[in-house]
Amino acid sequence: MTDHPPDLAALQRRLAEFAAARNWQPYHTPKNLVAALSVEASELVEIFQWLTPEQSERVMADPGTAHRVRDEVADVLAYLLQLCEVLGVDPLAALAAKIERNELRFPAPGGRGDATPG
Amino acid sequence: MTDHPPDLAALQRRLAEFAAARNWQPYHTPKNLVAALSVEASELVEIFQWLTPEQSERVMADPGTAHRVRDEVADVLAYLLQLCEVLGVDPLAALAAKIERNELRFPAPGGRGDATPG
Amino acid sequence: MTDHPPDLAALQRRLAEFAAARNWQPYHTPKNLVAALSVEASELVEIFQWLTPEQSERVMADPGTAHRVRDEVADVLAYLLQLCEVLGVDPLAALAAKIERNELRFPAPGGRGDATPG
Amino acid sequence: MTDHPPDLAALQRRLAEFAAARNWQPYHTPKNLVAALSVEASELVEIFQWLTPEQSERVMADPGTAHRVRDEVADVLAYLLQLCEVLGVDPLAALAAKIERNELRFPAPGGRGDATPG
Repeated sequence: MTDHPPDLAALQRRLAEFAAARNWQPYHTPKNLVAALSVEASELVEIFQWLTPEQSERVMADPGTAHRVRDEVADVLAYLLQLCEVLGVDPLAALAAKIERNELRFPAPGGRGDATPG
Repeated sequence: MTDHPPDLAALQRRLAEFAAARNWQPYHTPKNLVAALSVEASELVEIFQWLTPEQSERVMADPGTAHRVRDEVADVLAYLLQLCEVLGVDPLAALAAKIERNELRFPAPGGRGDATPG
Repeated sequence: MTDHPPDLAALQRRLAEFAAARNWQPYHTPKNLVAALSVEASELVEIFQWLTPEQSERVMADPGTAHRVRDEVADVLAYLLQLCEVLGVDPLAALAAKIERNELRFPAPGGRGDATPG
Repeated sequence: MTDHPPDLAALQRRLAEFAAARNWQPYHTPKNLVAALSVEASELVEIFQWLTPEQSERVMADPGTAHRVRDEVADVLAYLLQLCEVLGVDPLAALAAKIERNELRFPAPGGRGDATPG
């Protein structure tokens, strides 16, 4: 572990080195990585699929489930970063640009805040 | 826009403020956010679903497709950060911990690097 | 349309003829068809993602949403049948066998019916 | 097992009785069933995610993988039928209607059969 909190770019480099050291690059086509990303997202859904909305709010109260949630969050982020690596996409810049488009698309309300999320 | 590149925590705060300003928190249960995350991951898959592996490598060469990819990457990251916000999960710490577990689970090879990715 | 209600095997044949007439077989690898199936399943999820459980029960009361639900159900079934076609899987036999395994795995209760669905 | 091959409506009834005998109906909201359907579709994707198109064609040659494929096909079909049950959707009629719409949307070619699948 490092003494400093990890940053996204450093984790992305560690993932790239991890895959390279295991000769996994031939598997890591963009097509395969988006499939793996969607599979990991579904493993998150699986944790919540039979829960009521209220139960879903309390999911971190159980240590075993909390660990499983953090593990699947990590897997989603890992495949997203690996996808960005092979495609040359900057995920933070992409998100910043998207937030700005959404600020135009869904103007902050004076009282119209009951629209459905986009 | 800021003059400095955005960092993940700053984007997470902007997303939380964005949702709060639109009164979207009641929709943002963990259960709903994981569903939205998986839907966005599938929108990434949709871009690649009929492509060959080779075509998938060249997807950023077309400006329209490249924009669509960056847009969906942003959506996945946005919902992942919003999920982490409502659950109190630190996504960078979760990923750092997962990489360390994976380094034990898939030792770097001396020549055994043809295992399937985990 | 036929005078008789369609059966699954007849619809599976029509889908195979439809794809063959358009020379779509090269796209219809098992890998691509499962991706397309999961994308269509997510389009169903998208309809429900922000709804409460109670709202989700009433989704067919709105004609536009009802049409969209039937359309996505059809898409999921279409890709499932096309996958079964290229793999030589009999979906009805597979389901009958699974139900029998589940009857052993989840015995019908005398009063223990509060287990979570499998 | 029955002496006759099962039909879809009979399997749908067995699934409804199975859930009722275990008091699972409260879990079987449309919202939860679409989530479960998408999770099972992703379990199919997981089988194929690292395979080349060519490897994906041969997946039934391995008995263990073939069993897993049939099992996941059954799970997808089971949740689709249970969703149709609670929503009052006829899956065969929905698919027949969709095929007819697609025959108008993608006319069979005289030689134009190189369009991408819809």
